[in-house]
Amino acid sequence: MYDFVSFEIKKAKELGEVPVKLLESFRNLTQRGKGVRSGLICLGYRACGGKDIEEITKTSIFMEIFHSGILVHDDFMDRDDLRRGFPTLHKEFETVGKNLGVTMPLDHYGNSVAVCLGDVAFYLSWKILINSKFPKDFVSEAANIYCDHIVRVGLGQALDLTVTDVSKRNEKDLLSVLLTKSVEYTSSAPLLIGAALAGETNKKKLKALENYAKCFGWAFQIQDDLLGMFGTEEELGKPIGSDLREGKNTLLMLYLSKMGTRKHLKIQKELMGKENVTGEDVMKMREILKESGAYDYVKNMGLKYLKEGRTYIPIITKDENLREIFDSLITYVMERSK
Amino acid sequence: MYDFVSFEIKKAKELGEVPVKLLESFRNLTQRGKGVRSGLICLGYRACGGKDIEEITKTSIFMEIFHSGILVHDDFMDRDDLRRGFPTLHKEFETVGKNLGVTMPLDHYGNSVAVCLGDVAFYLSWKILINSKFPKDFVSEAANIYCDHIVRVGLGQALDLTVTDVSKRNEKDLLSVLLTKSVEYTSSAPLLIGAALAGETNKKKLKALENYAKCFGWAFQIQDDLLGMFGTEEELGKPIGSDLREGKNTLLMLYLSKMGTRKHLKIQKELMGKENVTGEDVMKMREILKESGAYDYVKNMGLKYLKEGRTYIPIITKDENLREIFDSLITYVMERSK
Repeated sequence: MYDFVSFEIKKAKELGEVPVKLLESFRNLTQRGKGVRSGLICLGYRACGGKDIEEITKTSIFMEIFHSGILVHDDFMDRDDLRRGFPTLHKEFETVGKNLGVTMPLDHYGNSVAVCLGDVAFYLSWKILINSKFPKDFVSEAANIYCDHIVRVGLGQALDLTVTDVSKRNEKDLLSVLLTKSVEYTSSAPLLIGAALAGETNKKKLKALENYAKCFGWAFQIQDDLLGMFGTEEELGKPIGSDLREGKNTLLMLYLSKMGTRKHLKIQKELMGKENVTGEDVMKMREILKESGAYDYVKNMGLKYLKEGRTYIPIITKDENLREIFDSLITYVMERSK
Repeated sequence: MYDFVSFEIKKAKELGEVPVKLLESFRNLTQRGKGVRSGLICLGYRACGGKDIEEITKTSIFMEIFHSGILVHDDFMDRDDLRRGFPTLHKEFETVGKNLGVTMPLDHYGNSVAVCLGDVAFYLSWKILINSKFPKDFVSEAANIYCDHIVRVGLGQALDLTVTDVSKRNEKDLLSVLLTKSVEYTSSAPLLIGAALAGETNKKKLKALENYAKCFGWAFQIQDDLLGMFGTEEELGKPIGSDLREGKNTLLMLYLSKMGTRKHLKIQKELMGKENVTGEDVMKMREILKESGAYDYVKNMGLKYLKEGRTYIPIITKDENLREIFDSLITYVMERSK
């Protein structure tokens, strides 16, 4: 992955200092990624009988490159200063712009070049996918899955930005935001893309993979939301309270709004989307989430998904080693739970 | 094109109101486009012997969809309120957000959903290209050209945002920004993509096409810059003085900084990148551009490119009708000149 971006950095040298700096920051960002999605692509590929491990490993990077790009866009939208423990790209380039004597407002400059870099990342991602050595029909199928999912991610993100007052939303709407932005994107897309690159056409198998993916994705998202509210800054790689400030629509917040007392709802309304969230605010929110039963409810929902997810594994693959990997993913999500 | 976006609107209905509204605004924007790039793809295709006019017409739309998407990003970066005579998407969604009771700052909301929509547009664009019925090898070659150009467009845009003080830039740097962002993107990319979709491999022909494209692209860009400074709001579809406020790096500004008197340079420094550009400022800038000779110099440069571009036409194609089209493109650029 780093080689690929490094090659692009070399090519960008003829364009000037800022393009190179942008790609270098981007390389640092991708290096700090966990590689969940590329790992799932490889897993989906192997589960469907794919044998070219070298090629799938190389190809699967396309989704990590995309993911880093969309994170750069997200960080600008969420106005976060930290990502994976380091300044977000738009923040970093405020300083770069200042040093270069940029005349436009520096926050706007940082935001703008961050959007440019995200756009560039999407096309670098495509370059990897379209040049993979798998049969062109398989690549085409994978590309279609990729497109359909990212269109939904983008639209889901726009919806999510709009819906900051959780008390006004019904369960269906919120679940639909989470489904597109997180579950499908983080889990279904990579597993199904992997299957497509292996040329899988067995419908029963694809359905089981999709069902597993949904369960795993939901559980992963739920744990992410729990972490977002109960994790430390170190665990999160971003400031605690960031979810709260952005009024992030999580299942926790949905169930708080359903199960909370009048007092809880008043506090929720006060703190959701608050511009200057303090550590004390976060503590107060944690308390009412536990008191109201929302925390336990959502946590149990996650565990239920994990349990269901396990039931699909035998249909997906007969290979014991792979079954173990599918299983250990479930264990991984359980263990990171708060 | 409208059918394609309309179909996506239908699919987005299950996601909610905002995704639908976004895609509807996007459809309106694409409908107001001139279709220069899709036209050039068709032309490149036909010049290289391509016969499936229906398929190339359908496929070429992918670049219009991309173009509308990148315009949405650009308008946010340039902080323009108008595009093609209508409110820009980020501006429009400030109002939409207000009516929907969005709690984050409305300008940030407008900017954010505009970025989401641009991202979505890129993937809609890909969906069209990868599902075109041309041989997969040809599509793959076209996709590579597409990727390489858009990566350069994005990096060129970041460079352009950085370099607002034209007096500090040398000619080479500025030409490199214009080359990537405008010339290659508007002209070389579509013509070469068209050629790729026709499966063209004759190097001499491809070289002539590329040379023609560069000349046409430079001339087009030059006329665009002239219009940007000397056109009416109606001709531009955006406020006059917008180029000036953004401190846009144009050849006009480069040559003014080279050929202007001390008085000219002082005015240039004052007005370039000025936050509140008035009509009077625009008039003053027009005056010194003419007085210094920069206007004539750049205009003649454009005419020179047009003349050179004509010389490549006989190598590109023997078909008289097509030759006439290549020729009329040159005439078109000449006629829109100020």
